[in-house]
Amino acid sequence: MCKTPDGKQIKVGILGATGTVGQRFVTLLVKHPWFNIHVLGASSRSAGKPYAQAVAWKQTVPIPSVVRDMIVHECNPRHFAECAIIFSGLDADAAGEIESAFRSADLAIFSNAKNYRRDPSVPLIVPLVNDSHLIPLKKGFIVTNANCSTTGYVIPLRALEKAFGPIESCLVTTMQAISGAGYPGVPSLDIIDNIVPYIGGEEEKMEWETLKILGGIADGDDGMKTFDMHARHPLRVSASCNRVPVIDGHTMCVSVRFQQRPPPSPQQVREALVAYTPEAQSIGCPSVPVHAIFVHEEPDRPQPRMDDIINGAGVSVGRVRQCPVLDIKFVVLANNVSIGAATSSIINAELAVLKGVVKLE
Amino acid sequence: MCKTPDGKQIKVGILGATGTVGQRFVTLLVKHPWFNIHVLGASSRSAGKPYAQAVAWKQTVPIPSVVRDMIVHECNPRHFAECAIIFSGLDADAAGEIESAFRSADLAIFSNAKNYRRDPSVPLIVPLVNDSHLIPLKKGFIVTNANCSTTGYVIPLRALEKAFGPIESCLVTTMQAISGAGYPGVPSLDIIDNIVPYIGGEEEKMEWETLKILGGIADGDDGMKTFDMHARHPLRVSASCNRVPVIDGHTMCVSVRFQQRPPPSPQQVREALVAYTPEAQSIGCPSVPVHAIFVHEEPDRPQPRMDDIINGAGVSVGRVRQCPVLDIKFVVLANNVSIGAATSSIINAELAVLKGVVKLE
Amino acid sequence: MCKTPDGKQIKVGILGATGTVGQRFVTLLVKHPWFNIHVLGASSRSAGKPYAQAVAWKQTVPIPSVVRDMIVHECNPRHFAECAIIFSGLDADAAGEIESAFRSADLAIFSNAKNYRRDPSVPLIVPLVNDSHLIPLKKGFIVTNANCSTTGYVIPLRALEKAFGPIESCLVTTMQAISGAGYPGVPSLDIIDNIVPYIGGEEEKMEWETLKILGGIADGDDGMKTFDMHARHPLRVSASCNRVPVIDGHTMCVSVRFQQRPPPSPQQVREALVAYTPEAQSIGCPSVPVHAIFVHEEPDRPQPRMDDIINGAGVSVGRVRQCPVLDIKFVVLANNVSIGAATSSIINAELAVLKGVVKLE
Amino acid sequence: MCKTPDGKQIKVGILGATGTVGQRFVTLLVKHPWFNIHVLGASSRSAGKPYAQAVAWKQTVPIPSVVRDMIVHECNPRHFAECAIIFSGLDADAAGEIESAFRSADLAIFSNAKNYRRDPSVPLIVPLVNDSHLIPLKKGFIVTNANCSTTGYVIPLRALEKAFGPIESCLVTTMQAISGAGYPGVPSLDIIDNIVPYIGGEEEKMEWETLKILGGIADGDDGMKTFDMHARHPLRVSASCNRVPVIDGHTMCVSVRFQQRPPPSPQQVREALVAYTPEAQSIGCPSVPVHAIFVHEEPDRPQPRMDDIINGAGVSVGRVRQCPVLDIKFVVLANNVSIGAATSSIINAELAVLKGVVKLE
Repeated sequence: MCKTPDGKQIKVGILGATGTVGQRFVTLLVKHPWFNIHVLGASSRSAGKPYAQAVAWKQTVPIPSVVRDMIVHECNPRHFAECAIIFSGLDADAAGEIESAFRSADLAIFSNAKNYRRDPSVPLIVPLVNDSHLIPLKKGFIVTNANCSTTGYVIPLRALEKAFGPIESCLVTTMQAISGAGYPGVPSLDIIDNIVPYIGGEEEKMEWETLKILGGIADGDDGMKTFDMHARHPLRVSASCNRVPVIDGHTMCVSVRFQQRPPPSPQQVREALVAYTPEAQSIGCPSVPVHAIFVHEEPDRPQPRMDDIINGAGVSVGRVRQCPVLDIKFVVLANNVSIGAATSSIINAELAVLKGVVKLE
Repeated sequence: MCKTPDGKQIKVGILGATGTVGQRFVTLLVKHPWFNIHVLGASSRSAGKPYAQAVAWKQTVPIPSVVRDMIVHECNPRHFAECAIIFSGLDADAAGEIESAFRSADLAIFSNAKNYRRDPSVPLIVPLVNDSHLIPLKKGFIVTNANCSTTGYVIPLRALEKAFGPIESCLVTTMQAISGAGYPGVPSLDIIDNIVPYIGGEEEKMEWETLKILGGIADGDDGMKTFDMHARHPLRVSASCNRVPVIDGHTMCVSVRFQQRPPPSPQQVREALVAYTPEAQSIGCPSVPVHAIFVHEEPDRPQPRMDDIINGAGVSVGRVRQCPVLDIKFVVLANNVSIGAATSSIINAELAVLKGVVKLE
Repeated sequence: MCKTPDGKQIKVGILGATGTVGQRFVTLLVKHPWFNIHVLGASSRSAGKPYAQAVAWKQTVPIPSVVRDMIVHECNPRHFAECAIIFSGLDADAAGEIESAFRSADLAIFSNAKNYRRDPSVPLIVPLVNDSHLIPLKKGFIVTNANCSTTGYVIPLRALEKAFGPIESCLVTTMQAISGAGYPGVPSLDIIDNIVPYIGGEEEKMEWETLKILGGIADGDDGMKTFDMHARHPLRVSASCNRVPVIDGHTMCVSVRFQQRPPPSPQQVREALVAYTPEAQSIGCPSVPVHAIFVHEEPDRPQPRMDDIINGAGVSVGRVRQCPVLDIKFVVLANNVSIGAATSSIINAELAVLKGVVKLE
Repeated sequence: MCKTPDGKQIKVGILGATGTVGQRFVTLLVKHPWFNIHVLGASSRSAGKPYAQAVAWKQTVPIPSVVRDMIVHECNPRHFAECAIIFSGLDADAAGEIESAFRSADLAIFSNAKNYRRDPSVPLIVPLVNDSHLIPLKKGFIVTNANCSTTGYVIPLRALEKAFGPIESCLVTTMQAISGAGYPGVPSLDIIDNIVPYIGGEEEKMEWETLKILGGIADGDDGMKTFDMHARHPLRVSASCNRVPVIDGHTMCVSVRFQQRPPPSPQQVREALVAYTPEAQSIGCPSVPVHAIFVHEEPDRPQPRMDDIINGAGVSVGRVRQCPVLDIKFVVLANNVSIGAATSSIINAELAVLKGVVKLE
């Protein structure tokens, strides 16, 4: 199961390798059964230096020895020509131009940047949700992944749509961990003994990303496929996003209304969540979690400090019960560190390899 | 404005005077312009002792000197016969029997206990909301007040119903402070760096208390008035309650749908909230806050550590905006300590005095 | 007591008025019985704008109306010529040059910056401790105040030296609040559920500032007075500084050894601390606290969240007991916000007025 | 290395198996290479029930399947007759009588209770420090271990005495995690955004336990060995103990003065700490950590949330530098959960097996 289709190792590159997301890519990829880090890309300020000198390392594990002395290159396509896959941890202000240049150079980019998420011809993929959007693409392409709060709660939404048909509306209130804001991120004076009921741009992101991720595929005017924003079964999403004094783990209170009448019962919902097996699990992506969704029966779970490590890139769901206003409500906990950013990009790349979307020489 | 109708002081008693709520009653009443503490009642274990010896004092101000040496009595109506008003801070396991005995002894009880809240003939009053429920009562009566999370968010709901007619549905997600759980309350191991997405019984309380508080008055079978649980305009409430690592201040994300179509705009909602002036303000209750509702314009307010003292027993509202699923959403902050329990009972008693519901000799 | 010696108001200026310390100066000075804000100085970026536009206001009270529309000036002495007193909240990188220029222009500067603290001819004054260092100065002068952790713990040290003679050695371990690091200051990811056992430069500052503050006055070579770093009775200080997840209030565990043998008993120490009355209190500085030192008898006090407001610019001391290694140990709590920075400078200026060190026209 | 001397498994019992420490014993012993849980003892209230029913399980891992259905017995020696080793997690109010009865029944008890720690004939053993106190004992005996704050900081003290001879005095200020107080333990209202500068009895325990642990062995009057409280080289210890809002990990600021003049340099101290290898490591106790002492070079480490898992039952030391009052100061971090209580008892029992102090049939 942990072999690539043809049993060979795959050369990969990392853009933005010295940043927070880049470091996370490095940490995960040095242990990866298929992918070998071949090139590290960063700004011209870092180029030419050994990685250990160029980086301000912030991970809890030491800098892996295989990358310590690797010389960092500028983010120019010619340094990455041998890489079958490029992971991008670039900041939004650099990603637009660089990712476009790499795509034009016929390279395959799996990006965590937000720049191309809204592009109708670029897939926005949460690997445990909409791998079906990983359709055959031109040689050079970009695959994006979602914001970490969206990534967590669309997994149970997808499980419910699969079991019970379209969701008509969804109201989600998040309590998001400070690690979601990066480092240095949230000043301690703003958040200790406090709640900040606002995260800039986050509610808008959750509201439209959900539509694209849970939506279908349409034929574009030019023969290209595009993504239809849940257009055939209009879905309304309302998000309220809060920052809370929790280190890791986004907790979300979700209420949904189904199109199907009568709606499923809480017990049917629990069973559907437990049963949900995304294709990334069934076709054997090495980085998928054991449970896509772990369902808690105790009345007071999941809790971020207690439960966020149960399940790696999967999510915990608890308190499934009737909602007097919509149909069903429940609590989702997603570990924003282990589910977000780098991990999602890597599983997306695994899916692309197994589905033949990435061509290996 | 700070005089009783006849300019005289009023003798009051406190049941459960040594408990957390009782201590809060003592702290507030020693500064009150009308009410004089005449009798302190507690369990037989405390009876006969000076108050300073009987109590494990937990307030941030010292024990007021006027009560230090007051001898504590058992909670027997004969010790309280001279009191025109009795405040009850009793625990639920004692309140049922004692409050009933006091009512039978023709005494006027303003209780913070939950025992009689559901009794159809007992008013459940949030003083900035439904003082209209303070109708003429038999000589011996009980007036209850609501749970601290309900108390906060029904104030803007009432302001909206007053301005725009009945609310059809309301979805509220709370992030509640630890001080709402009393002392010792929440163990630190359960809540530091954590969220507990469950508070036993709280969601049910918010869901039905809201109906009674915002409901009307009906004629009961026996000629008595009863409370109609918003029956003429059925209102559906869905509450999700969370405990968060915040000391004081419950933050609540609220979405509402009005019966009126089209619904009011966010700007109309803001104006209605600012304009709301409950009767407790207009008739001059001494303990009402300056603003029943303070509306924030900044995108990231209100915040519990920053804004909870702005407004005493009033609430802060911010982020009024459209809700893609219901009509309007906003954030409410209520300081559970200054709005809850003792304060509400005291304003209820002030209202009862000014409206002549309590008979002064 | 709240009148200046001649009953007139005094014009003051603020350097660095838009910064954190500058805002604190503004907040305190608008309520001051003697001092009128006459000029606000800031960088050329702010100059020419009304204060309310130039500042990113971070205080919990709104911008005072009297300064809202005041036009900000550059920090050039000619704008401040009418000010009898200049308060400096400048950052260290600007303070060196600007304060020197102001001194050369015969202005009286009370500075919170660290630049001139070590200058042997510049007094370093904690107002409740060494007002005796406020000797007649040339017309243009700088008076500095100390770091907030030093400021708090030298108050009891001074009380002990006054009562029992020189202290021989002092070992202090601090647990310092995040507000001591300014805003944005400590990232929340560094301090929630954590201790950082290091604050850059802080231990050195506490170790030498204590010597200058508690030291005497010597005659310099050039007829000028200098400060002798406790040289006649050498004092050794060892500081260990830690950052803790507390918003306001530095808690310090202090052990001292006296030169006097046998040393005083814990009870004698308690009495000396209670009795301590610095000159700033006896001559009537308007901004001094009621108690320079408040002594707690309970075994578990002082605590920063519970006790830091008792005493404004004074300190709380508790747990006075024998130290098996040195002589006596105790706990000091100083509210770094109300004791530090701006407050100390203002009391220093009040002392200077009452002692005639500042010449009023 | 992970074999008992004769390659056989050893039957063990647990007293107080349903309590917090008892649960920790169960969690650790089910994975132990030598010890098999044979009997679980608890109060008469639990006796007769399957363990899973009797216990309110609070560990982060589920109840191990091998103990789920084990029937709990009363703490009577006859149920434990086949156990070569008894671990006691009893509370202090039960431990006195029960442990004495077990000792009289010729059983070998490794106890975490404090009742017999001060008994001159009972060893008080921190396994990485004074295994030399594990001298031949009568058949029935009690071996105790120390308080969790003592356990952590005596490890570097022992390393220093081994390298440089007796320490003359030691001043330690602790910042202790809430998990050290058990569950429910510290109320959140007491510790969020706060420091409590007092832990009942803790300073006294640290001050005398250190003497016994670092002391020698003397001949008692009756031919029995006793422990001499560091009497040959009198050591003075002064402890100041604080509770801080940290979940796991006690951070301690330590200053020491050596008898040896001149004292060792910081660099010599660092080298001695790194080199320290206690006998428990060299003779192969299965539960010892890789590093008894991990020495940090970064200026701002160790930190409890970042570093407490580095080293299991070992400790982290950082910031080794000169102390202007004593000789050397440094910071110690001990994970109170992984170093304290159950782990120490288990390593003590491993030492006793390897040294032949416990007789195996």
